[in-house]
Formats: sequence, structure tokens, C-alpha cells
Amino acid sequence: MTEPLATGSTIGILGGGQLGRMLSVAAARLGFRTHIFEPGANPPAGDVAHAVTTAPYEDEAALRAFANACDVVTFEFENVPTAALDLIEAQVAIRPGREALRISQDRLTEKKFLESLGLQVAPFADVPDMDAMTAAVEQIGAPAILKTRRFGYDGKGQARLHKAEDAQTAFADMNGAPAILEGFVDFSHEVSVIAARSPAGDVACFDPGENVHRDGILHTTTVPARLNTSQRMDAVLMAGKILNSLDYVGVLGVELFVTSEGLVVNEIAPRVHNSGHWTQNGCTVDQFEQHIRAIVGWPLGDGSRHTDVVMENLIGADMDRVPEYANDKDVALHLYGKTETKPGRKMGHINRIVR
Amino acid sequence: MTEPLATGSTIGILGGGQLGRMLSVAAARLGFRTHIFEPGANPPAGDVAHAVTTAPYEDEAALRAFANACDVVTFEFENVPTAALDLIEAQVAIRPGREALRISQDRLTEKKFLESLGLQVAPFADVPDMDAMTAAVEQIGAPAILKTRRFGYDGKGQARLHKAEDAQTAFADMNGAPAILEGFVDFSHEVSVIAARSPAGDVACFDPGENVHRDGILHTTTVPARLNTSQRMDAVLMAGKILNSLDYVGVLGVELFVTSEGLVVNEIAPRVHNSGHWTQNGCTVDQFEQHIRAIVGWPLGDGSRHTDVVMENLIGADMDRVPEYANDKDVALHLYGKTETKPGRKMGHINRIVR
Repeated sequence: MTEPLATGSTIGILGGGQLGRMLSVAAARLGFRTHIFEPGANPPAGDVAHAVTTAPYEDEAALRAFANACDVVTFEFENVPTAALDLIEAQVAIRPGREALRISQDRLTEKKFLESLGLQVAPFADVPDMDAMTAAVEQIGAPAILKTRRFGYDGKGQARLHKAEDAQTAFADMNGAPAILEGFVDFSHEVSVIAARSPAGDVACFDPGENVHRDGILHTTTVPARLNTSQRMDAVLMAGKILNSLDYVGVLGVELFVTSEGLVVNEIAPRVHNSGHWTQNGCTVDQFEQHIRAIVGWPLGDGSRHTDVVMENLIGADMDRVPEYANDKDVALHLYGKTETKPGRKMGHINRIVR
Repeated sequence: MTEPLATGSTIGILGGGQLGRMLSVAAARLGFRTHIFEPGANPPAGDVAHAVTTAPYEDEAALRAFANACDVVTFEFENVPTAALDLIEAQVAIRPGREALRISQDRLTEKKFLESLGLQVAPFADVPDMDAMTAAVEQIGAPAILKTRRFGYDGKGQARLHKAEDAQTAFADMNGAPAILEGFVDFSHEVSVIAARSPAGDVACFDPGENVHRDGILHTTTVPARLNTSQRMDAVLMAGKILNSLDYVGVLGVELFVTSEGLVVNEIAPRVHNSGHWTQNGCTVDQFEQHIRAIVGWPLGDGSRHTDVVMENLIGADMDRVPEYANDKDVALHLYGKTETKPGRKMGHINRIVR
């Protein structure tokens, strides 16, 4: 796939959650159809998609039919099983590419990759077993945080070591899963850069946002972030370096710690990112459209900020505040149509316009 | 239906064209599901809807099942057959209400209604037959324009009289359909007001846009429109008067001629309107979301303009310019996913950001 896709083509999306939902709307805005592949019933993205396949990632016939119906395939989360990706890729291009997925699926691989680019990361050590754990604690010290190498998100698969003696308990928490120990970084705040790259190699970054987490889940993103000119430039250059070295196509999220010794990369996500939701009301072209433009080979759009925004996630019972938000003239509501509210579940977000 | 609808409820939309499509996206943004009823196959709105019923407006069983599946019903065009509306309304509320539809479905009724509110309209005369036609031409003179009372849109069902002698030919063009003769208004330009009213009676108007037509079809809408402060206030007051007198719920488009003797109402449309598409990139809450908010009984949103915009329709072969527009950083593209391009067919629009 080298030519730009014509409007009317079909974009496959692996995963039918809120990111798939907002990608689907952006695709429709440019005249594309979307086809969602999602194991769970009634996916939020299904309400705004041309077609939905409900099947597990192990259903080869369903995967083949899906791939056959699509002109390009993308994903809303990085933990799609490798076998499923292999099967799809035999028929149709997956964007962003497999290398970005391979790297971001494994925290250890990701850290090594980022280091190889000369970027700063938190001190880390491989923890395949308890012996390695003991050595890692000696090397890195406490406090520190033990994280599974794979399948972690929103603070899941993590255990904190307040002191060295917590090592055994923390290791037991991993249930035998390969892990890495990360040292804490002395940072003042976290920012993220949502960056896009086209097949032609053009790169465009949205303004960095400043993130506040609560209970391990993103709570707010504020733009503009507190960064001086030099930090702002560094953030964008770092994102560009990552994109280029991966020959990346699509949108990538880069989380950065701001420290007195410069920016430290926390993690990268090879997809649209919760911390980029502010772009829906801050920019003419948002992160979702930017991703669609990239993967179909269209030119990147203008992501410059016309409005300052504070994005706030609506999690679980936060939905009770929807009537209040609906009545607030400074609030743009974005709800995901999820029928069941659960504690910790992302139900929607608001973009508060800062005038 | 007096209570606000809860997010997750289903909104029925009669008509699956581009207006239904953009309404559906706005509904999804607030967590609502949409169900499209459309006689034609593969409706553009179907790509972004939870459910689609493909059936003629005469299919009573399909209409009943549709009504049964919806918590409120709205429409994207005003010429839905009355019998279908009666059947739906027996089960579920239709918003905006039937009175607005009744009036706007008939040019004669509409003119009389607007006059009854003390608003200026173009000189007009009822033309049920050729005798009346002769009298109408004597009364109004030429040039003038003969229009069918019902089912006209985008310049269809109209015949121009350049001189009085064209009367017979023009009348023959109506094929026996009841018509009205309208005198020309000496206007400098046309503007339109997109106005919304909630069940509680709150009214919110978007900034008036200035319209340019080409071959009887809207070509561009520019905001802000050329209006002085007093004209701007008049436009908004007139729209409010119309909404209130109809106890209207939803978005209404009002087309106005700007003359040296004040504003003259050209026509009203009881729905979202092509001349309001600029709001998608000019405002935090666009006309589509404003309509959805009104019909589900939520508070109206903030429709103030943050950006100046020129909307331009992409009609037929204008689609050839999409690659060029995709590359223009000042252009936001909105394509309707229509598979077949035909001359005169609305395929999409662009909103050009004016910096």
C-alpha cells in the first residue's frame, strides 16, 4: 500500500472501545468506512461503525474475513495477539507497523529501544526471577516499582516497593510474569506529546499536554503544559526521533517526566492516547483524524491549538456529574455510550474550554 | 416525554442522508444511540448509526418497529409523509413537533404564518390554477418565480418568469402541482440564522452566516456575515419569534434577505441546515449537537464562534479537489461517504478556517 486510499475505502480497527469509537467518527468525517473487530459484545465503537465483527482474536476465519473486507488495518490497543496480527498482515497492511507494536508490547524492550536512541529513561532492571529481583533492588534501591513486562495498562500489573524489604511481596504479586523494576524519577510533573507521522515521513506534533493521574489512571490533561521553550522543543524532537527510528505511520503518544536534568521518557503508546483527547476541542484536526490521515496516506492536517483546554476523564461514578456538565457552557462532553458503569471504567471525558 | 433522556437512549432519525449522518455523530458524542429510517439502500448515515431500518415510508410494520425502538424521533428533511408521522407519533414523541413540519411543508402556509408574526416576506400569490396564475402575474409582475407549494428543495420545482409572457410555460412546468408565485426581492445578500430552542423555552442562535448560491444550490456560507449591529439583532429576534410561536424544540434554519428596508424572510427549514455546517469548526457545540441536546431535553450548549469560517459545499465533480483540500492546512474536510458521485449531488463540504 503506497498510494493514498480513496475516500470510501474501509479501515479496519482492532478493538471496539472508546478509542476505536472516536477513530471511527474521524474516519467517517473523511468519507471512510470502518470495520471493527472486537471480541466483546456491544462494543462502544460499534455504534458509529459501518460493520462489526464479534469474534475472539483466535478465530482465524473471522480474522481472514475481516482482513479481506479492509483496505488498511489499525488498532486501538497494543496487546493484540501476535498470531492474529500475522494472519491479518498476510492480507492487508497494518498501520502503525509491527515493529512499533513489538517494542511497546514489552516494557523491557521499550526501555532498551529508548536508551538506544540516546533518550533518558527511568533506571530499570530486568526481573525474570527472584534472584534477579534481589539484584535489581540492590542496584536501583527503594522506593521503586515492579511492573509486568507485558499487558499492563492504567496501573494494572504493578507493585510498589516502599522499602527494600517489600521485594518478595512485590515479586509474588507478579504471579510469575516476567517483570522489570523501575526506579522512581524525581520529576516535577508529567507531560505527553501526541505526535503523528505520515508514510512520506512528515511529522506533526500537537502541543504537549500536562497530565495528572489519580489511582494510576489519567485524571486530567491541561494544555498548554508548563514547559519552557527549550523543554517544549526537546519534547517535540524526542517524539520525532522515536517516530523516525520506527519508520512509524500514525499517531503515537509519548509520556515524559519533567526533571531538572531534562525530560525523561516514561512510556510510549503506538496509538491515539487518552492524553490527546483535548485536541477534539482545541484543534481543527484532532488526534483521531490525524491518525486516520496518516494510515490512509493522506497529508497530515493542521493540529495547531486554537483554544486552551483542560481534559478530564469521567470514570465510573463521575457519570453522575453529566447533567451538571451538560449545563456548563465551558464544557464539551464526550461520552462513550457504555451501557454499564463500573468503578475505574472510563465512561467519557470532558474538554473544559479555558477562555 | 418531559424528563431529559438519559445517555444511552436511542434517537430515531427519519432520513439517512448527510444531515442524518452528522446528527448521528453528534448523538454518539453525547452517548446516545441512533436508529436511522431510510427507504434508500446504504444510507450515508448508516455508517455511523447503531441501527438502520431500510423500508419505505408506507411500511407500517417497519415504522411501528422503528418507533418502538426509539425514545424520541427527529428527521433530517421536512417531507416525510404525514401518515408515517401519525403512525410514529402514536408511539413516541417527534421533535421538532408536527406544527413546524405542517407549516414548512407548504410554501403558502409558511408565508402566511410568517406574515402573521409581522415578519416581512417576498410578495406572493396562491396559484392553484391558470386563472390564478394570470391574476398573480398581474398582481406581482415580472420578473417573478413560480414554486410548487410542496416538496421543493435546492431549486427543484421552480420556474422563473423573466417577463409576464412566460406565465403559461412556467405554469406548465409545475405539472399541475399547486404553486405560489413569488415576486423578487431587491436584496444585497442572503444570510441565515441557525437557531435552537429547548423544551424549557431557552433559545440560542449561532452567528448569522452569509450565503452564496450557485445553480439554485448553496455554494458557500461565510461567518461572520455582513450585517450591522441592528440587522444582527433583528435576525436573532426574528428567529426567536418563529421558534417561540411554534413552541419549537430543536434546530431551525431561517434564510433572510438583507434589503435596505430591513430583513425579509426567504424560507425556514425545521431541521439542521446546510448553512449551519460551519459551526462544526467554528464553535465548541455545533448545530448537530445543539439539535440533539434540544430534542433529548438537555440544556443547549455554547454556540459562540471561536473561529471565522467559510463553508463551501462539494457538489458532484468538486470531489476531484479533495486531494488538494486534504493538503490545505486551512481546510477541515467533511465527506459524506456517498459511493456514487452525480452532478448536483452534495458529496461533502469544507470549512475553511479564516485566520
